[in-house]
Amino acid sequence: MPTQNLTVKALTFDVFGTVVDWRSSIIKEGEALGARKGLKIDWVAFADAWRGGYAPAMDRVRSGALPWTKIDALHRMTLDRLLAEFGIQGLDEAERDQFNRAWHRLAPWPDSVAGLTRLRRRYVLATLSNGNVSLLTNMAKAAGLPWDCILSAELCRHYKPDPETYQMAVELLSLQPHEVMLVAAHNGDLVAAAAQGLRTAFIARPTEYGPNQTKDLRAEHDFDVVARDLGDLADQIAA
Amino acid sequence: MPTQNLTVKALTFDVFGTVVDWRSSIIKEGEALGARKGLKIDWVAFADAWRGGYAPAMDRVRSGALPWTKIDALHRMTLDRLLAEFGIQGLDEAERDQFNRAWHRLAPWPDSVAGLTRLRRRYVLATLSNGNVSLLTNMAKAAGLPWDCILSAELCRHYKPDPETYQMAVELLSLQPHEVMLVAAHNGDLVAAAAQGLRTAFIARPTEYGPNQTKDLRAEHDFDVVARDLGDLADQIAA
Repeated sequence: MPTQNLTVKALTFDVFGTVVDWRSSIIKEGEALGARKGLKIDWVAFADAWRGGYAPAMDRVRSGALPWTKIDALHRMTLDRLLAEFGIQGLDEAERDQFNRAWHRLAPWPDSVAGLTRLRRRYVLATLSNGNVSLLTNMAKAAGLPWDCILSAELCRHYKPDPETYQMAVELLSLQPHEVMLVAAHNGDLVAAAAQGLRTAFIARPTEYGPNQTKDLRAEHDFDVVARDLGDLADQIAA
Repeated sequence: MPTQNLTVKALTFDVFGTVVDWRSSIIKEGEALGARKGLKIDWVAFADAWRGGYAPAMDRVRSGALPWTKIDALHRMTLDRLLAEFGIQGLDEAERDQFNRAWHRLAPWPDSVAGLTRLRRRYVLATLSNGNVSLLTNMAKAAGLPWDCILSAELCRHYKPDPETYQMAVELLSLQPHEVMLVAAHNGDLVAAAAQGLRTAFIARPTEYGPNQTKDLRAEHDFDVVARDLGDLADQIAA
């Protein structure tokens, strides 16, 4: 690791895709729902469509077309649309709400809990996610993610990659930008963090979007650290 | 426990005095500093004076006389004044900063970690403190406090007992007020939380202010739960 990273005191983490495997988790929740309700649905396509609605929904908030709206509510807007598009009927309000909270129950990648546990011995660990605070809190409880602190776009009412999100993390951690590292599987998130002076660690998650993933297969910029997974990151900066 | 409390999903905690014993911790840090620097100081009086500056400093923020200022900075303003008043010389900037961070290293009451650990199995546990986010995060890491989420007055830039603080906790937890309980050793904090619709649990900490404590010796209002300590609280609502 380059010498300047010895100043890093806190690691902040992108969560969806970097720490948890949203795609397999949503597919599994869909299949379980389908089995309970006797639905014949392509849950792989459904999961990809649900996640596909994520960035456009946030962009509506980022552009000001929508007022501040939590991810839970954005997920629900997309869910209601997809239920119609996929012809899924017979879900009452409680069932829709329960399915929408599948995003609170996402499973970690196999290396996540062990890697975070090692990293936590040396650094303050915080989320830095577009997920709302309660989503991230419930997810951590369900998945055993050992965060020291839940930081969320919700706390500054700006979604990543708006600069306010990275600035908010630095301010709430009471640190200097170079003392905070963003860990993410997405090049764009890291580039935006670096522009605010944060350190950067790229983690490869080449199947986040399934076997045919075309983007974020590798680090495309000169990040401070590039790691295969969170265990490898711990080997490199917390050994 | 009254029936209505069965709806509680998250417990929020006052921290200074309720979960950690600030007075013994600050006295001990002062004595250690005094021994290192050869100072003859009444550290009991010093600790009480330092804490005595707390409410007036926050009131300057609450009234608008000071712009938003983190507790770390308010503690430091009081510290610098007290160093002069107590005639303490010879502390450089690093030593003053290190001493000021004694508030990040406060020790829990003997029942706190075990009680929180039991309560956490059934409820989401969050701080709801006037301490800033980094102070609460560092304290949790040092003391082993098993929070699910760090909530702080800093997140709404209002100090308790301003109503915005309790409203902020409910909003960030994505719950209804009656689903959130404040646990505190201070009658005034609980009365203010109840006014916003939160449930309330009084924990007796009759030596928080030392052997001659005169206030908050017992619950003075009809709170939902009254407990001797956090173990007793767990017996009552998480058994």
